[in-house]
This record gives sequence, C-alpha cells and structure tokens, in this order.
Amino acid sequence: MITDRLEQQIHFLVEVDKLKNVLRQSYLTDGQRRENDAEHSWHFALMAIMLAEYSKAEIDTLRVVKMALIHDLVEIDAGDTFAYDETGNETKEAREELAAERIFNLLPEDLAEEVFGLWREFEAKETPEARFAAALDRFQPILLNYHAGGKTWEKHDISKAQVMERNLHMSDGAPDLWAYAKKLIEQAVEKGYLSTDSIEED
Amino acid sequence: MITDRLEQQIHFLVEVDKLKNVLRQSYLTDGQRRENDAEHSWHFALMAIMLAEYSKAEIDTLRVVKMALIHDLVEIDAGDTFAYDETGNETKEAREELAAERIFNLLPEDLAEEVFGLWREFEAKETPEARFAAALDRFQPILLNYHAGGKTWEKHDISKAQVMERNLHMSDGAPDLWAYAKKLIEQAVEKGYLSTDSIEED
Repeated sequence: MITDRLEQQIHFLVEVDKLKNVLRQSYLTDGQRRENDAEHSWHFALMAIMLAEYSKAEIDTLRVVKMALIHDLVEIDAGDTFAYDETGNETKEAREELAAERIFNLLPEDLAEEVFGLWREFEAKETPEARFAAALDRFQPILLNYHAGGKTWEKHDISKAQVMERNLHMSDGAPDLWAYAKKLIEQAVEKGYLSTDSIEED
Repeated sequence: MITDRLEQQIHFLVEVDKLKNVLRQSYLTDGQRRENDAEHSWHFALMAIMLAEYSKAEIDTLRVVKMALIHDLVEIDAGDTFAYDETGNETKEAREELAAERIFNLLPEDLAEEVFGLWREFEAKETPEARFAAALDRFQPILLNYHAGGKTWEKHDISKAQVMERNLHMSDGAPDLWAYAKKLIEQAVEKGYLSTDSIEED
C-alpha cells in the first residue's frame, strides 16, 4: 500500500540525492577530482564497520553507521565548510541548523526526530558513538589527502601544527587510529606535503 | 598501537576508494551526470535505514546496511554491468568472483570472511536481509531514472516489460516498495520515458 508516510520518506530520499553534488576539499586518492559528500559518507560508514574494534569505548556500530550516513545532509543547503576555514566555521552552526530544519522535516515526525537526534549527538561528540564517529570523519580525509600526494594541504598551505590541532580529538574516540594518523602526518611532513611553519593570518 | 592487522584494514580502505570511479548507467536526479558506485551504495544504505519498516520479513537492519556498503566492491575490478545488458550478465558471475578474491582478501582473514559471507548472501537473495537489500538495490535506480526524466531508459531503449520483469523480485523483499515502483513505471510510460513494446534481439 502506498501511504502518505511512504510518499514523505521517498520525497526525502529523492531530495538527498543532492548530497552527491556537494564538493569537499579532499581529492580522491588518484588526485583526479574532488570528493563529494555522498562518497565521503559511504567511505566513512564502511570504515565504521571495518574499524569498529578500534573505538576507545564500547559502541553500537549501527548507531555510528547511521551517523555516518546522515552527518553531512545539512550541507545540501549549508555547503561544505573546510576544516581549516576559520571564518566559515564561525557561521557554520547557524547555517547548518536552518538546513537541518528544512531537510530532516521532510521525513515523517518519528524519523525526523531520530535523524535530528543522531545529528545533534554526532555534533556534540559526547557519547562513545559520536566520539568514534568524529574520529573516523577526520581520519577519512587524512587518508585521502595523504594518498593523493598532499594536494589539498599544499593548495591551502596547511601546516603540520594545524592538522595536529584540528584532529587531536581523534584520540578521544580511537587512540590507535590517531596513532596511525600521526604517523601519516609525520610522513607527510617528510615528503613536503605539509609545512612545519604555522601559517598566521595577518 | 599500529599492528599489521590495522595496516591491512587501512590498505583495504584506501584501495576501495576506487569505487568512486566506477560509473553506473543511472543519472543523478538532476540529469547532469552519471552516478558512481560509491554514491549509489551510500544512497542504498540510507534507504535501508529510512525504509526498514517496509521489509516483508523481520530483518537485522545493520546486516542490510553492511550489504549495501560492500555489495558493489567487486565492480572495482569487474566493472558495472547494466541490469539490461544480457551478454554482460552472462559473464558477470565469473568476473565478480575473481574480483572478490582479490579485493576482500586484502582484509585480515576474519573480516574477509565476513565480507565474503555478506556478498554471497546478498547475491543469493535467500535470507530476509538479502531479499530486502535486493529490493532496495533495484528501487534506488528506478527512483533516479524516473526523476532524471527517464534519461537512462530512453538512451538504452528500455521497455516497460523489461523493467517489470527485471524488478519483479522486489515484491519478495518489499511489497509496498514494489507497489510504489509499479506506480512510477506506469507514470514513466505515460510520460514517454519507457516504451510499451518489448525490444526483441534479432
């Protein structure tokens, strides 16, 4: 039977197709083009399954995967904010809140509430699931940037100190993955992908 | 600690970045470009969460989501085979088996076994999870093709009879979603996106 509820769910699922057109700063590992949010969300969700054992605390994997799948939907309206864009990050919260109101509320009320809950939990980084998810959300672009030959870091003149500071919270969710990330960051400095001087704004 | 196990997991996760370059026949809903397998897998996984209530039988949602995330990995080596490509579908199984051997075995043994199990279960369409997953895997491109104005169907001269036959198994996994798909197929015929004559090979 085709109910109004089903129509609402499908309307949402068609609307979120737009996530495939939201470009991120990261390049694919082959360096040929920038990644989009849908691709990133898939990769992040797959990492949640394949790396679940590295969470610092016990987690409900399905909850982490759900966060991965929905965490960037707000960027359909709010756009992607580069991790190292200080001005963009100041207005990010307000822009994303408006986007969440519009996009999540396309769903039937119970599902909208679930997605709001998952998104707020992810953003707050307070539960074991959200901390692990936040670690993976940072680890994924580090892997991509490193294997693409540091293209994104070089393009934006990012320093080792910036990457260390921005990603330090990975250790709260997944200490072993943070150890791995630090190893890559060291190698990125050796290869000249990351500068060692902190870039100060004038 | 950075173990050999973690190195293997990461090697796999970097390798599968290539899924983002495997193009499907479906266009995004805006009709501007073709979708890739990573985007499709994300959309499919999100549909599993948002539409779980429509599964004909009770399911373990995490298992369906895992199938969605890994079901197309073999296409990194074997390529995408269009649902209506009869010749391609004859050799599909052998090509995909070889691909699975190479790609899944990049993982530590226990994870490789899990992924092999999920992939074979998905392909066999015998469990409630696999039947529901198979229904979503078909429903997703129907939604895209319809909202992109029938572009893929027209390009390949696909008939209503072909779409009905190829997707009939949706009713085994998700009868309500099949009802919705049939409604879209009827509307696609009315709009001229799908022909009503069956295309016979000479």
